[in-house]
Amino acid sequence: MINILGFDSDFDPSLLDRIVNEKKKIGYYNLPNQDTTYINHYLKQLNKRQNLNSISDVVVIGIGGSSLGAKAVYHFIRSIRQLKRNLHFMDSTDPITIANICNSLNISSTHFIVISKSGSTIETIAIYKHILAITKTIQLSHFPFTFITGKSSLLAQHARKVNGLIINIQQNIGGRFSLLSSAGIIPLALTGTKIDCLLKGAAKIKDSFFNQGYMQNLLLKKATFYANNASNYNINALFSYTDSLKYFNDWYAQLWGESLGKKQKNSVFHVGLTPIGLTGPKDQHSFLQLLYEGIRDKSVTFIKLKTFENHQKIPNITLEKLETFNLINQVKFSTLINMQADAIIESLKKHTRIPLDEITLQKQDEFSIGQLIYYYELLTSLVGNLLNINTYNQPGVEFGKNILIKKLQQQL
Amino acid sequence: MINILGFDSDFDPSLLDRIVNEKKKIGYYNLPNQDTTYINHYLKQLNKRQNLNSISDVVVIGIGGSSLGAKAVYHFIRSIRQLKRNLHFMDSTDPITIANICNSLNISSTHFIVISKSGSTIETIAIYKHILAITKTIQLSHFPFTFITGKSSLLAQHARKVNGLIINIQQNIGGRFSLLSSAGIIPLALTGTKIDCLLKGAAKIKDSFFNQGYMQNLLLKKATFYANNASNYNINALFSYTDSLKYFNDWYAQLWGESLGKKQKNSVFHVGLTPIGLTGPKDQHSFLQLLYEGIRDKSVTFIKLKTFENHQKIPNITLEKLETFNLINQVKFSTLINMQADAIIESLKKHTRIPLDEITLQKQDEFSIGQLIYYYELLTSLVGNLLNINTYNQPGVEFGKNILIKKLQQQL
Repeated sequence: MINILGFDSDFDPSLLDRIVNEKKKIGYYNLPNQDTTYINHYLKQLNKRQNLNSISDVVVIGIGGSSLGAKAVYHFIRSIRQLKRNLHFMDSTDPITIANICNSLNISSTHFIVISKSGSTIETIAIYKHILAITKTIQLSHFPFTFITGKSSLLAQHARKVNGLIINIQQNIGGRFSLLSSAGIIPLALTGTKIDCLLKGAAKIKDSFFNQGYMQNLLLKKATFYANNASNYNINALFSYTDSLKYFNDWYAQLWGESLGKKQKNSVFHVGLTPIGLTGPKDQHSFLQLLYEGIRDKSVTFIKLKTFENHQKIPNITLEKLETFNLINQVKFSTLINMQADAIIESLKKHTRIPLDEITLQKQDEFSIGQLIYYYELLTSLVGNLLNINTYNQPGVEFGKNILIKKLQQQL
Repeated sequence: MINILGFDSDFDPSLLDRIVNEKKKIGYYNLPNQDTTYINHYLKQLNKRQNLNSISDVVVIGIGGSSLGAKAVYHFIRSIRQLKRNLHFMDSTDPITIANICNSLNISSTHFIVISKSGSTIETIAIYKHILAITKTIQLSHFPFTFITGKSSLLAQHARKVNGLIINIQQNIGGRFSLLSSAGIIPLALTGTKIDCLLKGAAKIKDSFFNQGYMQNLLLKKATFYANNASNYNINALFSYTDSLKYFNDWYAQLWGESLGKKQKNSVFHVGLTPIGLTGPKDQHSFLQLLYEGIRDKSVTFIKLKTFENHQKIPNITLEKLETFNLINQVKFSTLINMQADAIIESLKKHTRIPLDEITLQKQDEFSIGQLIYYYELLTSLVGNLLNINTYNQPGVEFGKNILIKKLQQQL
């Protein structure tokens, strides 16, 4: 992974010390070096209960940080490689979505993973009840659920009562930073995603940052730029020039928005950086005009893929009356898409002063997306630290929940 | 469709006159009352060339305004109703996406619709060449293409040379306002979407606005609020509480971003309103925290569906240790999702002063989405007029194109 910054900012060297300090308390930092033996242990346990060979589909019942991470990696990898099992995500209470997913499944060859760190996510419990009722109706002989949750949550207590498989999420790892924890890794392992490569990619960025590698100064500079410019460039777009990062964009949006949209510590000031996920070249024909001519409140990070796993060329066809387009003949689509990204970068530099940077992933594999994940987690932590906020909580999410519970009680 | 505004703004009565005046020149305004006999004429013509009964799949080759509109309506309707034919969209030069779509199709039972108003969209021509080569390789006996383009474009000239079916896009209808023109209607008609209902929905909003109905004051007020607050609330989120509006959100993002991100007329000032598409309840667990505690630069429109076509209830199951969740038992999922929306609205009102409004669609059908489409088109025109910009051009999109062409020429 290569990152070229188009902007610069002097950073305070104590920022690194503060992050090194945070690393002792916040769990996600050390996930790249985790002991992964629990994965095989889990697979063996599962195999005893529901023959692994009989499982064709895996469904994650989880919302927000409990689904966005695995979804990002799964879609990135699956677009180039047939995986062992299909992975689905039930992350909505929309009855039509629920029905459509259920209708597409063969329940008897499906395993469900209920994920909720708190163990009390209303959406997740509601969907779990629905699936449980279905499995009872068809008189399934096995119990097709795994529970991934906080050690002492009510869901964990429930899982023990029903003798379900339980995987623990560490207390000091928040939902949106849990991709490389069991919450992301267990569902991905069931699809045959190469977990070791994913973690190695993350470890590479971690080592580079904490051991004075190339990433250290780069991330300190980049984070300082974002924090210093939080009020004039408060919208941060990710412009990915591969469709396979579409769900990565969604993961980024949660990570960035939910971590950095906060009241400052000991202050009444609100801060926040607004994430936008774009996909090229499609969004050249939708959002780009706003970048060029709208208010200059946006920074843009372009993500390119150096090597595509497909070398299809545009055929050597001359179209009558469209002969001017012969100049694309014999050009690989992979070359064209990267050229499109480069053309937009060049023209934004020429016509605007928008802060830009470029990330290039080597290829579409677990190692590359592992790098990208850890890079963004670190960047988020750094910016949060500079903004003097608690990066890891989400007090706002609770506000609506209490009102919902009141509404539900009223209708009883 | 009901719209409840949570904010107010006095409007200048001459705004209505200016829009009535614009309506004489800008083509989209009158599309709800169009003569649709051309649809049947087209279907007959197509049937002569490629037996309609033999067509199982339709592919739109088009990007931006040439695909986002039909995609929005198709996904809204298809999630509740089996349609006559599958509709696909080739709107990317990502070689993996192109290969995956092609591999999923039976080319001999597919019809392709090449859509480009200018007729010179590089992505579209590249994909057309690719598909053309495939149809030649498999020696298809018929020519499986329709062309929807501006009357005198190079693509139209090409289409005449190859004796292809051609449908015209009026000169005074821009891509992002073309959903209700042939560009959106022809692909949708092939899937069996009820075009008449779609247009009737749009006509209802049109009549209400232009004939002093409920929509007139409402839209004048709402647009004036957006324009007056373009600098303090420059991010406008659409929070849709049904997954079926996911692609409508994308259509909205293009319409809003590309129309309103402009230099002002006779001025050097940049203006722009930044669209954000959110889906509930999922994004309660991702973006909501930023709304609550981030910088107060956002307005939010909630979209709810009054009636879902599914009445599934959460089953009456008591989960050991999770007995507190008995309060969701026997609640319909459709009730729950709307209650979730209401809880978030109530809590945002309580904890913030974010400008909010609510749109409720009657049901998931063509009439409702037709209303929503025309409502947003009108709103965009009104805000653009107030911001003193050209709502209908997109000069920025050309900047990168010229650089791309230079890059392509250099590598020849």
